[in-house]
Amino acid sequence: MTSDSRADAMGELEERLAQLEAERDERLNDLKRVAADFENYRKRVARDQESLVARAHERLVKELLPVLDDLERALQAAAEHEEAKLADGVQLVYRELRDALSREGLAEVEADGKFDPHVHEALLSQPSEQEDGSVIEVLQKGYQLGDRVLRPARVVVSQGE
Amino acid sequence: MTSDSRADAMGELEERLAQLEAERDERLNDLKRVAADFENYRKRVARDQESLVARAHERLVKELLPVLDDLERALQAAAEHEEAKLADGVQLVYRELRDALSREGLAEVEADGKFDPHVHEALLSQPSEQEDGSVIEVLQKGYQLGDRVLRPARVVVSQGE
Repeated sequence: MTSDSRADAMGELEERLAQLEAERDERLNDLKRVAADFENYRKRVARDQESLVARAHERLVKELLPVLDDLERALQAAAEHEEAKLADGVQLVYRELRDALSREGLAEVEADGKFDPHVHEALLSQPSEQEDGSVIEVLQKGYQLGDRVLRPARVVVSQGE
Repeated sequence: MTSDSRADAMGELEERLAQLEAERDERLNDLKRVAADFENYRKRVARDQESLVARAHERLVKELLPVLDDLERALQAAAEHEEAKLADGVQLVYRELRDALSREGLAEVEADGKFDPHVHEALLSQPSEQEDGSVIEVLQKGYQLGDRVLRPARVVVSQGE
């Protein structure tokens, strides 16, 4: 290698070195930026989750205000011994509450077939004309919210004849 | 510079170059890792938020099941014309619903002082013995959940004498 070509090679190496240093620093800056974005996102998520739960609650609680109003009216009717008005009021309140909860996804557990331990709780079993292992009476309704069973239906199960 | 010292210098430069390349690649790997963590976190958050809202709802809906049960019992009493039982049932349902909602943070808007446009809505104003601008009657109760007014109290305001 001549002295000149060596100097050229060194010049190239130094140039490449400076370029690599710049690349490394750039990656480091990218890393810092992404890490900072991540951290901010985490903080925002924590805040959002609180307000998300609060808003979700707010909506449901707000839907229940008319139920509370109509219950107060029914109580008023009871105090004034207006029995027909009271009975109508209770009907209305029941429909309102049931509708508000079914809009939230609440559904009654079905209980007109075979006993299913996932959604039923057997409180009694009795001899009966119905098929062995079928539900013959519901003592307390069960409810599910989407796929989740909030409360199993409490039932009487047939032992067969 | 001697030929030997030039060779040494080139050797050092090459070593430094290899080191920088390794550093740059390491930073790049860090960056990819953090970016991947960030992406996974985003996905998890989206899933969590759904289940968070679902769980929050589930708790409140579950608290309302006994209210629904007792309403059904009250309806049964109404159907059987057991008026005293019906009136008691409505009392019970009212207390249960009010208590469940107050555990969620629901509170009645106060309405026994000066008219406050943040929590009251004036439906009427009337001459009255009470001080000008004070609330003299509540036509519909208002409710707030924590700091948020879900519904202003609808009131009659005094115009003074």
